[in-house]
Amino acid sequence: MDLGVCYYPEHWPETRWAEDARLMRETGLTRVRIGEFAWSRIEPEPGKFDWGWLDRVVDTLHAAGLGIIMGTPTATPPKWVVDAMPDMVALDRNGRPRGFGSRRHYCFSHAGYRAQAARITRAVAERYDQHPGIVSWQTDNEYGCHDTVQSFSPAARDAFRLWLAERYGTVADLNEAWGNVFWSMEYRSFDEVELPNLTVTEANPAHWLAFRRFSSDQVVSFNKAQVDILRECSPGRDITHNAMGFYTGYDHHDLAADLDVLGWDSYPLGFLEMFRFTEEQKRRFAHSGHPDIAAFHHDLYRGCAKDGRWSVLEQQPGPVNWARHNPAPLPGMVRLWTLEAYAHGAELVSYFRWRQFPKAQEQMHAGLLRPDATPAPALAEARAAADDLASLEGGAPVKQSAVVFSYAAEWMTQIQPQGEGKSALWAAFHCYSALRRLGLNVDIVHPDAPLDGYALVVVPCLPIVSDTLVANLEAFDGQVVIGPRSGSRDMDFGIPPTLAPDKLEALVGGRVVLSESWRPGLAIEGDGWLASGWFDHVEGAAAPELTGRCGRVASWQHGKVRYAACWPEGSYIDLVVARAAYDAGLPHDPLADHVRHRVRGDRRFVFDYESAQVTIQQA
Amino acid sequence: MDLGVCYYPEHWPETRWAEDARLMRETGLTRVRIGEFAWSRIEPEPGKFDWGWLDRVVDTLHAAGLGIIMGTPTATPPKWVVDAMPDMVALDRNGRPRGFGSRRHYCFSHAGYRAQAARITRAVAERYDQHPGIVSWQTDNEYGCHDTVQSFSPAARDAFRLWLAERYGTVADLNEAWGNVFWSMEYRSFDEVELPNLTVTEANPAHWLAFRRFSSDQVVSFNKAQVDILRECSPGRDITHNAMGFYTGYDHHDLAADLDVLGWDSYPLGFLEMFRFTEEQKRRFAHSGHPDIAAFHHDLYRGCAKDGRWSVLEQQPGPVNWARHNPAPLPGMVRLWTLEAYAHGAELVSYFRWRQFPKAQEQMHAGLLRPDATPAPALAEARAAADDLASLEGGAPVKQSAVVFSYAAEWMTQIQPQGEGKSALWAAFHCYSALRRLGLNVDIVHPDAPLDGYALVVVPCLPIVSDTLVANLEAFDGQVVIGPRSGSRDMDFGIPPTLAPDKLEALVGGRVVLSESWRPGLAIEGDGWLASGWFDHVEGAAAPELTGRCGRVASWQHGKVRYAACWPEGSYIDLVVARAAYDAGLPHDPLADHVRHRVRGDRRFVFDYESAQVTIQQA
Amino acid sequence: MDLGVCYYPEHWPETRWAEDARLMRETGLTRVRIGEFAWSRIEPEPGKFDWGWLDRVVDTLHAAGLGIIMGTPTATPPKWVVDAMPDMVALDRNGRPRGFGSRRHYCFSHAGYRAQAARITRAVAERYDQHPGIVSWQTDNEYGCHDTVQSFSPAARDAFRLWLAERYGTVADLNEAWGNVFWSMEYRSFDEVELPNLTVTEANPAHWLAFRRFSSDQVVSFNKAQVDILRECSPGRDITHNAMGFYTGYDHHDLAADLDVLGWDSYPLGFLEMFRFTEEQKRRFAHSGHPDIAAFHHDLYRGCAKDGRWSVLEQQPGPVNWARHNPAPLPGMVRLWTLEAYAHGAELVSYFRWRQFPKAQEQMHAGLLRPDATPAPALAEARAAADDLASLEGGAPVKQSAVVFSYAAEWMTQIQPQGEGKSALWAAFHCYSALRRLGLNVDIVHPDAPLDGYALVVVPCLPIVSDTLVANLEAFDGQVVIGPRSGSRDMDFGIPPTLAPDKLEALVGGRVVLSESWRPGLAIEGDGWLASGWFDHVEGAAAPELTGRCGRVASWQHGKVRYAACWPEGSYIDLVVARAAYDAGLPHDPLADHVRHRVRGDRRFVFDYESAQVTIQQA
Ligand SMILES: [Zn+2]
Ligand SMILES: [Zn+2]
Ligand SMILES: [Zn+2]
Repeated sequence: MDLGVCYYPEHWPETRWAEDARLMRETGLTRVRIGEFAWSRIEPEPGKFDWGWLDRVVDTLHAAGLGIIMGTPTATPPKWVVDAMPDMVALDRNGRPRGFGSRRHYCFSHAGYRAQAARITRAVAERYDQHPGIVSWQTDNEYGCHDTVQSFSPAARDAFRLWLAERYGTVADLNEAWGNVFWSMEYRSFDEVELPNLTVTEANPAHWLAFRRFSSDQVVSFNKAQVDILRECSPGRDITHNAMGFYTGYDHHDLAADLDVLGWDSYPLGFLEMFRFTEEQKRRFAHSGHPDIAAFHHDLYRGCAKDGRWSVLEQQPGPVNWARHNPAPLPGMVRLWTLEAYAHGAELVSYFRWRQFPKAQEQMHAGLLRPDATPAPALAEARAAADDLASLEGGAPVKQSAVVFSYAAEWMTQIQPQGEGKSALWAAFHCYSALRRLGLNVDIVHPDAPLDGYALVVVPCLPIVSDTLVANLEAFDGQVVIGPRSGSRDMDFGIPPTLAPDKLEALVGGRVVLSESWRPGLAIEGDGWLASGWFDHVEGAAAPELTGRCGRVASWQHGKVRYAACWPEGSYIDLVVARAAYDAGLPHDPLADHVRHRVRGDRRFVFDYESAQVTIQQA
Repeated sequence: MDLGVCYYPEHWPETRWAEDARLMRETGLTRVRIGEFAWSRIEPEPGKFDWGWLDRVVDTLHAAGLGIIMGTPTATPPKWVVDAMPDMVALDRNGRPRGFGSRRHYCFSHAGYRAQAARITRAVAERYDQHPGIVSWQTDNEYGCHDTVQSFSPAARDAFRLWLAERYGTVADLNEAWGNVFWSMEYRSFDEVELPNLTVTEANPAHWLAFRRFSSDQVVSFNKAQVDILRECSPGRDITHNAMGFYTGYDHHDLAADLDVLGWDSYPLGFLEMFRFTEEQKRRFAHSGHPDIAAFHHDLYRGCAKDGRWSVLEQQPGPVNWARHNPAPLPGMVRLWTLEAYAHGAELVSYFRWRQFPKAQEQMHAGLLRPDATPAPALAEARAAADDLASLEGGAPVKQSAVVFSYAAEWMTQIQPQGEGKSALWAAFHCYSALRRLGLNVDIVHPDAPLDGYALVVVPCLPIVSDTLVANLEAFDGQVVIGPRSGSRDMDFGIPPTLAPDKLEALVGGRVVLSESWRPGLAIEGDGWLASGWFDHVEGAAAPELTGRCGRVASWQHGKVRYAACWPEGSYIDLVVARAAYDAGLPHDPLADHVRHRVRGDRRFVFDYESAQVTIQQA
Repeated sequence: MDLGVCYYPEHWPETRWAEDARLMRETGLTRVRIGEFAWSRIEPEPGKFDWGWLDRVVDTLHAAGLGIIMGTPTATPPKWVVDAMPDMVALDRNGRPRGFGSRRHYCFSHAGYRAQAARITRAVAERYDQHPGIVSWQTDNEYGCHDTVQSFSPAARDAFRLWLAERYGTVADLNEAWGNVFWSMEYRSFDEVELPNLTVTEANPAHWLAFRRFSSDQVVSFNKAQVDILRECSPGRDITHNAMGFYTGYDHHDLAADLDVLGWDSYPLGFLEMFRFTEEQKRRFAHSGHPDIAAFHHDLYRGCAKDGRWSVLEQQPGPVNWARHNPAPLPGMVRLWTLEAYAHGAELVSYFRWRQFPKAQEQMHAGLLRPDATPAPALAEARAAADDLASLEGGAPVKQSAVVFSYAAEWMTQIQPQGEGKSALWAAFHCYSALRRLGLNVDIVHPDAPLDGYALVVVPCLPIVSDTLVANLEAFDGQVVIGPRSGSRDMDFGIPPTLAPDKLEALVGGRVVLSESWRPGLAIEGDGWLASGWFDHVEGAAAPELTGRCGRVASWQHGKVRYAACWPEGSYIDLVVARAAYDAGLPHDPLADHVRHRVRGDRRFVFDYESAQVTIQQA
């Protein structure tokens, strides 16, 4: 595995570049990621390029022995691009323009900006073409960051209408699929369709789901356009993009299909603070991050990547600037996070950033160097990780368990939570965490992925079920856990005629005849477990597995399949998953809450998120 | 009392209609409500009507022996209506258009839409005219749902100016009445008046009160236009409309004056979840609804209805889709709710809806049938309720106590809470609940209603007091409880020259010389009671009734009248009301918190909201 | 010290004026503040003035022996002013116009409104010119109230561009100073700069800081224009303006530089309720106000005033209307607040308002008279305070301790809290409170103020440090406490090359190499103290002063200077300050939490905020 760093030479005097490159190499870094925010320096005036400085950067880094990951600068078009076509900015859900002054101020559907993005991509690609220093291209930066996938602009509306016409063929089919008769929402032509924002009350969930799919497709085609140019102009380089944490704005399976390597940006402390962890977890893991945050994304994005090739394109090296609170990692955590990535099979961990920039939006974001160029604590940890890696020879992944996740599932629970906060993503995270607490290797896989080699498969919450999944599960000889709402919808957000779990009914051995969502405090209590949040009434041949003191059945069992009738969280899903692991012949006793394992090849990595220690054992 | 159901034949194949009708009759239902969202099927293209399907629906239902309640489809104008006049949509308080894509996307003040609404109403009314299947007409659907009464559009502004000119005559009178000199807000003509939204800080409360009255009047006149057409084109049918729960956007007394029967839509579990109940109540009554939710509205709307004729046009039959959390009712609750409505004198309880529709916004809303046409639990309960009703012969209402409520009172506490969350509606609910906990029949009456026949009258919070009320209270020989802020304002939101309680001063035996609002945690504590939220300093001849340990007087007594100087909630108002009940010779010991009584004729209905049991005794 | 009252004769019949004036004098009042909202009465039609009534008011008040403070009416332009130039209103951060219907509906950058404001100011000033009744002029009213300093209008944008050109000279210098290279935010001309609102994610903090400075400067120049006219047309009168509580929208040092006397409006109960006090404090001091609220502002504004001349232009006399909850003061509090102002050196305390107005926005705001003209409780307290003052002869201020505060510091912590809720203003308040709990006199001073005469100086949080401050601190022979983030930024929000505390490093004896912000619940615990919220890693010669059980150093000591590495709040900063007070030879044992002292001349005033008693001792 390579180590690298994100570097912004345009922030620093040219006289410093060689020293930076030398110090990177001395630290054990072999990759350097540059260029993704530099449009205003590359093309300071429309059509007037200034390549000199970047040529010298590339040569300097290359000369030092660093392989360069070059970004296309399309996430930050300069002001003159915006001024030339002010309607290129996205409109937010309230119809307000999202203007210049930070980044990502473009609408994915704006043809004019697409042309500009293609032009600057081609210019950069042609310039560095076959330069031996360039090992990879990165498209844009963090698609969707700051909630930028959805735009409610006229450009988006027009593109959405075309997309709908393509998908549905006739407006009558659209009306039928969406059930538009419901509130006289029937359209007479695709040109009558509006975007689903600013309706009086909620828009049709089918309308939202189509808009989410469309918005995702716009990202994918925007990216594809760059990929095509890069492959044409600079063949032979890997193409990558950096995904984010707990982010589902577009379908990463679709995006990754056009990439060679899927990257992601790992900020365990920031994510702990900003996402759905309990107050107690936020305090307990404030300096280490919850033990499953990084691992979950490693496994998720490995599952999304075309050939399983993935990397960490940004790794938190110290406090960040953007969370509600920004503590420092424990000494040892940066090294631990690096080895956790290795244990999951990363090709690269690249620290963000080389040197803390004393100005602008991220001035409080730590780097490997402080603003004054002295070493920050992470520099020595990167060096230590490089030493660790030198003695590690790789090793094949080991399959034990899998969690099935789809982006559309998350869109659907967001569109229709039915009970406040219900989320397929977080259901997946809790199931993942339950498995990992048992010390298991976990893959997170596409619904149509082959299931061979696993002993246990969990489908936490998958409203739309494909025939492929059904066939794979039927053929599967391990244990299966299926969670609520699985098989509850058709492709257009309709309830299937045979009700949930629809095509899974034979496997589950039952039909869901009624679903309730429950407020916090309502629960089914059993011996050492408590199930809450949701309750499916199931009728069929399945046998009750867990029955509460109130007599309600919280989980059902039918051959190899368990059905979780309550929301897959907490002690309840931990128990269901542990029982399935036992039946699968897998380890089934939970580790301490701050310890996690990961086996790669013949090594077992033991990560202690309390002491920041890593132990490497024979597997 | 009839039982009925809300039915959307346009959702289902024509081949199913006769079977549905047969099953309705078999279930004991005699009424069916249809048509209110079907505009796009009735008039799929501008001016091109498709009556065939609806004719066949009407004939099929009629043939099965069902009486039809036909809705005018004006709550859901099709897209082509909107596209023909895009400015027909309301603007929200932030000035954003409330567009097509759900329902109620019209501004009550838009003349063009008023013309369209009249046109389609006349078309439907003329079509079914004297069809023997039609027993009632329903205008539109749930006026005000999704906060749609107030519109901040240019159409609303222009109509508001005309309304003001009509009401005030001269702008000088308006300036004087509102006290516009205060911040140089004086207008030189009615054309200078703007809507009260988007001001820098709060607008004049008199301005808001006028706008609330205007907005209510626009609903009333919009409805009246349909009523006039229906009476002209289809004479001899009852005309009704369906009001909502805990909703005060327009004055229901005014609306009901034009209707024969006032309906309302009863969703006890949804309302429990979405309105101001405590966390503890929301858990305790999650599967039954707080025991006073349905009863409060039965009594409120009976008091609003022109001749006391009212019905439940929608009754929750299972989980709904629109609350924060959506649990299922206890087995037995649907029957209990039905009998509670009977005990309060409803003419009809109509379940919403016949069959769960698997698509669009309300796909998770239960029906009497599941989406697959199999029976949902409520079907058997409806059948059981029909059996219960067969042996019940009606009976006169029995008067014991009354709560006085006006919509303007609620508007005024919303406009000027003075202490966070103070609400005349919720003051009324708490007083109502205090009375009902004593096992009493309670009427909720208009401020000018006659008070004969009651032993106890409570005026929870009535800023504007009429001469009629004063005369009625003076002549009244029962006990009276008057709450804070009563008599505190004139018609234009001004403090009267003699201060609160103004015209009630002789009855109360005191004058309020100072009012305080208190944050939670500040309270007057007495023996077994705790008063909070508000504190009026009273001077006059009245005698202290409840005095706290701090020496403050929480309630005063003057002959038959008690004055509650604190906010009418909790153990404090329970005690004041119980003491007044004692003096009135009424039952005064509280029932268990989950049990309620209602006497109709010579029967006493005992409702247990914990076990979902109903017991019918001799009164 | 004079006592006065705010009076709105335009609310009352002319026949009442003389009686009001007589009663004011009988109450012991000698000043009366009028006119600031009366534009619509002074100029009811464009260019048609009605001076008669105001002439008679002025003559009547003067004849009664009252000195008049006359306000310019520019805070409430009449509707016709707005209708003549609708773009004169401010736009809020979301781009919505802030329209007519309340007050302060103008953009400070609108040239047309500036001309109108100058015109009406000149008209009033020329009218009353040398009238002997006029003792002072007040400009406008509460600049910034309702968040009105910042406007995001085209007028503001254009003015901002000019301001930037003036400040930075070249756009290249601006780009360099702000670090605009960061996200390709570089401008090619000042005309490319937009306002910092409505960006996709946060704008550059340097951009915001410039906009905050610009917005403040616009207030100052708007005010200056009126001051110039008043000095020209009505020379020899004091000019004042009324500032607010816990308000930092503009730099009060800059504004006060153009005034003779800086006034402020003191509402201890409203401020307690609306600002950052704990629930427990809000309950405990609900009827008295937290003991440091009024005092903090007295000392803050005395420090801002040009020659130390300041006054209370509005003093709460009973419940207000605008807080979340509005309780009444304890009997005695109005007198206590009056004497607290005296003890801090006020020239005037003016009660707001004379008589409660029964209409419009503030109808629930108490006065000295009730709406019916009978005395409210505060009237007698004002009379008692007048008697107290008769026997008090003034006396020089006594210097003990100082807190350094700058408005830019607060802007910077608002722009970049880095940890949720971090605020330089509240850091100052907590340090102030810690000092005052020790019974000390505290001054709040400008960073460049001389420090002679103090024994202890606290710099709670001052990102930008001037050379003057460094020189003053070096020359200072008392004890110094410096808080986190001091010296952490340059003038354009950049981190200085030598890191924090930059120029203070020699004094502090250390450099901050890393800063963390911590969520509530993370803390350093020591013996009787708990430090939280922030943690600076310090390296240097300073010695640990307070070390937690975890081994982290919460405060450092280096000669006379202590450095607080954690957020200056709670038991931690109380202890650091008390230890510094001990070393400074000052009293260092805390008073009871409801008692405060203030020494003026040879008197020590002891204020008991629990019993509302004031005791005057020999100092
Ligand atoms: Zn075991
Ligand atoms: Zn009794
Ligand atoms: Zn001591």
